[in-house]
Amino acid sequence: MTSAPIAFYFDFSSPYSYIASEWIEALAARHGRTVQWHAMLLGATFQVTEIRSPVSYPLKREYSLRDFERSARFAGVPLKMPEKFPIATQNAARIFWWLHDSVHSARAVDWARHGLRALFARGVDLSDNAALLNVCRDFGLDPAQAEAAWNDPQRKARLRAVNDAAIAAGVFGAPFFMIDGEPFWGNDRRSQIERWLEKGPF
Amino acid sequence: MTSAPIAFYFDFSSPYSYIASEWIEALAARHGRTVQWHAMLLGATFQVTEIRSPVSYPLKREYSLRDFERSARFAGVPLKMPEKFPIATQNAARIFWWLHDSVHSARAVDWARHGLRALFARGVDLSDNAALLNVCRDFGLDPAQAEAAWNDPQRKARLRAVNDAAIAAGVFGAPFFMIDGEPFWGNDRRSQIERWLEKGPF
Repeated sequence: MTSAPIAFYFDFSSPYSYIASEWIEALAARHGRTVQWHAMLLGATFQVTEIRSPVSYPLKREYSLRDFERSARFAGVPLKMPEKFPIATQNAARIFWWLHDSVHSARAVDWARHGLRALFARGVDLSDNAALLNVCRDFGLDPAQAEAAWNDPQRKARLRAVNDAAIAAGVFGAPFFMIDGEPFWGNDRRSQIERWLEKGPF
Repeated sequence: MTSAPIAFYFDFSSPYSYIASEWIEALAARHGRTVQWHAMLLGATFQVTEIRSPVSYPLKREYSLRDFERSARFAGVPLKMPEKFPIATQNAARIFWWLHDSVHSARAVDWARHGLRALFARGVDLSDNAALLNVCRDFGLDPAQAEAAWNDPQRKARLRAVNDAAIAAGVFGAPFFMIDGEPFWGNDRRSQIERWLEKGPF
């Protein structure tokens, strides 16, 4: 049995990423796998692919807003769509990589869960810097350090490099999973991922 | 328990529609439901929504071609992507509605399965009229009658009306299911549909 880690790409602004973030670790652990989390910006992939947010298309918008919440209920994950959606999440993502690179990857993962839950379970607008600083404070970060991190050109470059690498790997949406070189896109690929982890390629 | 029929919208050119067409009847029957099949053209919805085929976007194209076949294997449905894809399927859809309106809805459903399998299991190009006539012949139709049907302005108008009604109902992709007024989009909503049929709204 291989134990190669699962690469999990997510955007803080993606409701399906939030749902998947609540099940991927337990699923991976049941199959002896670890998860490498990658905070990224869908906006970067959208520029390359000409895809837009599902809520930016007529008809698909209404369906998606309904499906986000229904898919969350189906997965047993509390989700209430925030009033403002989608939002810019580059600062939340830069904090992720700052913690990942300067503290520990596990701390970054905890931040990812904390941020995603703030937005999708409690409706906190992560694109509002004052609100984001409060979320940082709740998480035990020093707000001045957090703000310095998201304004740091080095952190900005790090996130751009992550986006570029994701695109180079074929990532065009979120959540996106790479497992043993096999790509899976979407919270709704959960059952295919489960079969892959159980029985290998199919 | 309600026994309202499931509305199932499909496009002959949609691989995910083909996969769903192979499981929807059995799933519905297990829950005492019937299925109303609606042949439609995604091209009509694309005009309204500005959505394009998944294979028309960079990166998403490569993923989708891989996912079509993997999702078919996952569902136990034989699928081999045809060389030419996507294709125009208005003539196959007009035959569907001709059989539906002039013969019997069950005969139209059999035609749907026959046509979808011809394209996705055997690679027959349904947009080629000579090939389509052969598929009609195999199905026991008179080729001259079939050709007359797809050229008949009344059949063309019927298909346009179906597309318009689908769009009015919120359909923007295929396969698309309406169950008790609840919309489900995609072959990958199968498990949500199953729960809905078992336990009702969630």
